[in-house]
Amino acid sequence: MSKSQISLIGLDADDTLWHNEYFFQLTQKRFLELLADHAESTHASARLLEAEKRNLAIYGFGIKGFTLSMIETALEITAGRVPASVIQEILDAGRDLLAHPVETLPGVEDTVEKLASAYKLVLITKGDLFDQERKLAQSGLGEMFKAVEIVSDKNRGTYERIFSQHGEGPDQSVMVGNSLKSDVVPAIEAGGWGIFVPHEHVWAVEHADAPVDAPRFREAARFDDIAEIIEKL
Amino acid sequence: MSKSQISLIGLDADDTLWHNEYFFQLTQKRFLELLADHAESTHASARLLEAEKRNLAIYGFGIKGFTLSMIETALEITAGRVPASVIQEILDAGRDLLAHPVETLPGVEDTVEKLASAYKLVLITKGDLFDQERKLAQSGLGEMFKAVEIVSDKNRGTYERIFSQHGEGPDQSVMVGNSLKSDVVPAIEAGGWGIFVPHEHVWAVEHADAPVDAPRFREAARFDDIAEIIEKL
Repeated sequence: MSKSQISLIGLDADDTLWHNEYFFQLTQKRFLELLADHAESTHASARLLEAEKRNLAIYGFGIKGFTLSMIETALEITAGRVPASVIQEILDAGRDLLAHPVETLPGVEDTVEKLASAYKLVLITKGDLFDQERKLAQSGLGEMFKAVEIVSDKNRGTYERIFSQHGEGPDQSVMVGNSLKSDVVPAIEAGGWGIFVPHEHVWAVEHADAPVDAPRFREAARFDDIAEIIEKL
Repeated sequence: MSKSQISLIGLDADDTLWHNEYFFQLTQKRFLELLADHAESTHASARLLEAEKRNLAIYGFGIKGFTLSMIETALEITAGRVPASVIQEILDAGRDLLAHPVETLPGVEDTVEKLASAYKLVLITKGDLFDQERKLAQSGLGEMFKAVEIVSDKNRGTYERIFSQHGEGPDQSVMVGNSLKSDVVPAIEAGGWGIFVPHEHVWAVEHADAPVDAPRFREAARFDDIAEIIEKL
């Protein structure tokens, strides 16, 4: 493929390269069923989301923090009357989530391979270090990346550092991901390019509006399309 | 200070730069007290250690995994009869552990500052990404490090990568830490130097013997001593 002015491509992992939120939602459904005798599910799911948001500042992102938030919510909405067996089931659900299979999304494998031959690829992801390393290993894509950045937050400063440390600065760097809030907007704020690849499942905490008046913003209907988009930047 | 052949110094964080295991042990004591009516403390602490070891492969290192292991152990040793109030207390204990104060150990601040003026310093630590970043920020030492490597495991390959990526290779690289198993032995296996700075509290999982016939092994009685040791390498 012909090479554009871009030299570095940052790729988000969860729900950009492989399913993630889908497994969280399955786990959450299991959690709501476990508590069905104790609380209405809309109430329980709202309380869980509140706990997750509240705990982000303490636990950061990832499955272990999510599991702890589920346990906390179970105690909360049952006023401490939750049976120990339910706590055990929540622990099990968290462990199952940590072991979910990793399957790359349609078009990902071919596209990543093609991009790796012409650009420097960096995986940029939040979440549990240990869990993200497991998923990358299982995806079979590990060799495609020149660097892996597992970060506690994705903000403007994160991208400024990565674009200069691994690339030739923001003018030649693009970030690709399914979260406007974490992948696209802060990468553009850092002076780089941002390509939004929507995914059907989005975590409620990650919602954001598309940027307006942003000449470095692109949207791709499918992951396959990003190679052509990047070529034209 | 005069400069030796060393150009890169890797520094472990927990129990090398600041207390960590001490806070884990306080939390474990609180856990055993919570379960005192349900299990003998030696039994409970042995079961907790088993759970921690078993869960390392799933949770990795860090406080969130430790909290989940405490909850699992509480369910296990009470055969599911643990009161929900005890689960709540364990959650609270885990959160308190995540918020423990960070105080650098004696001699650390001065020595790290001195070393930073002559060598490239890299912080190399395991554990929860989010928690380690918090501790580094609170320690006030963040500016002293050229790079921070929060890794899921510390083995020979970890040090090979870091010594070549951030330094001039293993001959010019030394790792300093309180764990023979994680800091000293694998750094020497990677071809570099290893300085052991013992700490009074050592996690049972981190025990290892001192290397024999290892000309690149050093031991420092106090953190202050490492500057002089490194100068002579």
